[in-house]
Amino acid sequence: MNGAQSLLRTLVDAGVEVCFTNPGTSEMHFVAALDSVPDLRGVLGLAEGVVTGAADGYGRIAGKPAATLLHLGPGLGNGLANLHNARRACTPVVNVVGDHATYHKQYDAPLESDIEAVAGSLNGWVRRSGHPADVGADAAAAVAASMDAPGRIATLILPADVSWGDGGVAVAPVPPRGPRSTSDATLDAVADVLRSGEPAALLIGGDACRERELLATSRIANATGARALVETFPARLERGAGLPAIDRLGYLAEQAAYQLDGVKHLILAGARSPVTFFAYPDKPSDLVPEGAQVHTLSDREHDVAAALEAVAERVAADVEPTLAPSQPPAVPSGGLTPQNWVEVIGALLPEGAIIADEANTSGLLLPAATANSPRHDVLTLTGGAIGQGMPVATGAAIAAPNRPVINLEADGSAMYTLSALWTQAREGLDVTTVILNNNAYAILRMEMQRVGADLSGPTAKALLDLSSPGMDFVKMSEGMGVPASRATTCEELAEQFARAVAKPGPHLIDATVPPLL
Amino acid sequence: MNGAQSLLRTLVDAGVEVCFTNPGTSEMHFVAALDSVPDLRGVLGLAEGVVTGAADGYGRIAGKPAATLLHLGPGLGNGLANLHNARRACTPVVNVVGDHATYHKQYDAPLESDIEAVAGSLNGWVRRSGHPADVGADAAAAVAASMDAPGRIATLILPADVSWGDGGVAVAPVPPRGPRSTSDATLDAVADVLRSGEPAALLIGGDACRERELLATSRIANATGARALVETFPARLERGAGLPAIDRLGYLAEQAAYQLDGVKHLILAGARSPVTFFAYPDKPSDLVPEGAQVHTLSDREHDVAAALEAVAERVAADVEPTLAPSQPPAVPSGGLTPQNWVEVIGALLPEGAIIADEANTSGLLLPAATANSPRHDVLTLTGGAIGQGMPVATGAAIAAPNRPVINLEADGSAMYTLSALWTQAREGLDVTTVILNNNAYAILRMEMQRVGADLSGPTAKALLDLSSPGMDFVKMSEGMGVPASRATTCEELAEQFARAVAKPGPHLIDATVPPLL
Repeated sequence: MNGAQSLLRTLVDAGVEVCFTNPGTSEMHFVAALDSVPDLRGVLGLAEGVVTGAADGYGRIAGKPAATLLHLGPGLGNGLANLHNARRACTPVVNVVGDHATYHKQYDAPLESDIEAVAGSLNGWVRRSGHPADVGADAAAAVAASMDAPGRIATLILPADVSWGDGGVAVAPVPPRGPRSTSDATLDAVADVLRSGEPAALLIGGDACRERELLATSRIANATGARALVETFPARLERGAGLPAIDRLGYLAEQAAYQLDGVKHLILAGARSPVTFFAYPDKPSDLVPEGAQVHTLSDREHDVAAALEAVAERVAADVEPTLAPSQPPAVPSGGLTPQNWVEVIGALLPEGAIIADEANTSGLLLPAATANSPRHDVLTLTGGAIGQGMPVATGAAIAAPNRPVINLEADGSAMYTLSALWTQAREGLDVTTVILNNNAYAILRMEMQRVGADLSGPTAKALLDLSSPGMDFVKMSEGMGVPASRATTCEELAEQFARAVAKPGPHLIDATVPPLL
Repeated sequence: MNGAQSLLRTLVDAGVEVCFTNPGTSEMHFVAALDSVPDLRGVLGLAEGVVTGAADGYGRIAGKPAATLLHLGPGLGNGLANLHNARRACTPVVNVVGDHATYHKQYDAPLESDIEAVAGSLNGWVRRSGHPADVGADAAAAVAASMDAPGRIATLILPADVSWGDGGVAVAPVPPRGPRSTSDATLDAVADVLRSGEPAALLIGGDACRERELLATSRIANATGARALVETFPARLERGAGLPAIDRLGYLAEQAAYQLDGVKHLILAGARSPVTFFAYPDKPSDLVPEGAQVHTLSDREHDVAAALEAVAERVAADVEPTLAPSQPPAVPSGGLTPQNWVEVIGALLPEGAIIADEANTSGLLLPAATANSPRHDVLTLTGGAIGQGMPVATGAAIAAPNRPVINLEADGSAMYTLSALWTQAREGLDVTTVILNNNAYAILRMEMQRVGADLSGPTAKALLDLSSPGMDFVKMSEGMGVPASRATTCEELAEQFARAVAKPGPHLIDATVPPLL
């Protein structure tokens, strides 16, 4: 067994089922080994941002890591933005980064690169395998490291000769470090705060925004009057009919300030203390209201659901949660606007959907329009590095082949990792992509005003404008093998969306939606 | 004047004319400042790999840096692969990477990232501006650092509040460190070696493969019998009718070994001692023939042209160079093959063309087919990180608006940075792209055999196959505003290529060429 074979065998034994790959020469023995370890499914991406973003989407849905296969420092670099998003989501990911053979590194060949420096920027786990006999143990450690609560990026650097050399040994899985428990003292203290009668807010986040956490949060809110909120960009949020509808904290600081106004106690459960996404001149970065006390019930390393349920037991033993009714909006009519397209989605969202939401400004009204639609998951742009939605949708569809995946995607963001469509076509994934095509970096138009920059000049205006030339996503999609159509009215979007969702395999709708601003 | 304005003013004063941008919120004051400093041309790319690759192509042709504008660590990460290629080319590039405001960093907001670690992996120059009053001096230092012989990547990190804060001061250019001179002792020693009668080879490289270096090298070779060679992947190679035709060292080790067989003295001028691109089991990485002595006439920090001319003066005072005749091949006929498509290009290459060559396996026969075509420049894949050709062509066209740019591009490589087409359309650049569409990662098929990996399994085979679904580059190109056509025969390619070259603005030809292997 060579190093690569022992790596694959160990990954599979530890429960890894998928490897998203964009390999080069140094990774050829890994690729060859896939035929001897058929339980690991190799999924090809045409660019590394697709590979790493797909691993993020996969991990958020599967709750365990996919592997990636990347080519030296440049390959890891190309994948870095979506690894950044995965890091912020605490998604478990195991990167395998091929490197030159150990004896080749001294020659500083053209692809020689500082892989450790790039991987190290992710604040995760990094190791370099030195010998084929070590690869199995290194792989088992990598999987465990990625799964240590709450989850992180593990990067294993695999020199070519360590991959092809004999002496590999498959190693049994290493148990990851599970979540910590919240102490009774903390539970009691938080319960006391909630019972105090002073205005309180309970902010949940991360992937602790699922059925158990939502139910407990709603019960606590109903019993104590505390405001319940979800952080702005949760890794995975369950919502829809039959679940408590809990608003997300607004992206705009003004909105968040309004939601938290008057709060004296802010209780964090799986969420971090809220700050603005960017700094804005003469505005505070910290969103905690002045004079409010912050209480951490549980951070991301804790068992958040257990903590919330224990608090609910203390303060809301006999109180029921409030569940959203099943009451999707009607399909609107007329030309598409930022206000009405979301209602088309809300009206027609299929049961059990996974929404990969990178609609940005076009999607500001989406949460309201889908709150009473059938139950679904939402995966958000956790790290703010755009170009994430299409790969995340791709990975989510691999993780949940029986669930419809809906990718709501801004035009500017789509262009970073558009070739995810090709992977969707190749793998026959059930992804419906709706491009919100407003011919602009609309988010930057909004931000430019907010940071006090002057956007009146023609050059600045032009650099936020994507209309010259306009992009035809129908053609681009068809060019990568994904059937596509164009919608300019609600009726067209409704008809095309319903048809796309009903038919297996990927589809794309290029929806012409004017900018919100 | 705010920090951003002082930055732009200083860049322009130092000769920087172009900034390739993919900005985010932290960079909005830089974007706004472009209207107050109109001499800096902002060119928008839809992904960072386009931005950094364009800066590489621009710098290789212009001989001075373009700036890039990137958004925090993820933006720099997305651009890292093409910065790696630029680093290997010793292209001067000035990255401006926006960061959170200084007081915002403590909050670890979603986009907080380790920019220094990522930038540091490039072994260039990195500085963080701390105050608006320092930005001008930092920018002047960055430009100088990028231009220090032989050229490198300079990265200036610009916090948002340093950008928007008042007190900026434009600073006069700082003279970069020029090339070193080769000592007379070295010149004499190399001349002695060349006169010794022992078999010698003279290897030139970097961007020291232009008229002066080629003429001197040819004279030396003619006078002494030394073999003249260009390194495998030079940053910029001038060639064609009227210039000495000097072969490049082969990519395949077997070919390079043949070219260097029997050599006792290997003289390096702007080239590094040759090594294989990758390690191959049981084959040496070092391509210097056993027992041969390596003599460095000049490394990349030297004035290579002056050194070669001084040697020519010593050993070839009255000897003429051999110049390639003007003798382009005839246009062949019939279905396209890896053998004949290059002759179509050779037959119709316009005078003064710049070729961005990322044709990979499909282009192995290109040099022979264009050796007697009109004079042209070739820009190659210096760092081996694919996805470079389309951005490099884009940047070259910005640097040389009056020269036809020809991008010969493998299908797999094209998919990393395809949105360069949109920038070409937006800017009306005169780039003719020929996609060599063989539906495969053909280079990996070749490499898989060469590294001794078993490619007989169906999974391994499938992961190197791009035919399912096949990619329609005509549609993708039209979707980004670049007119496109498909060619399957030499006649079609010739007709379409001649038409594309004759007409201003970008064009793409999707050429169906079967794999070489």
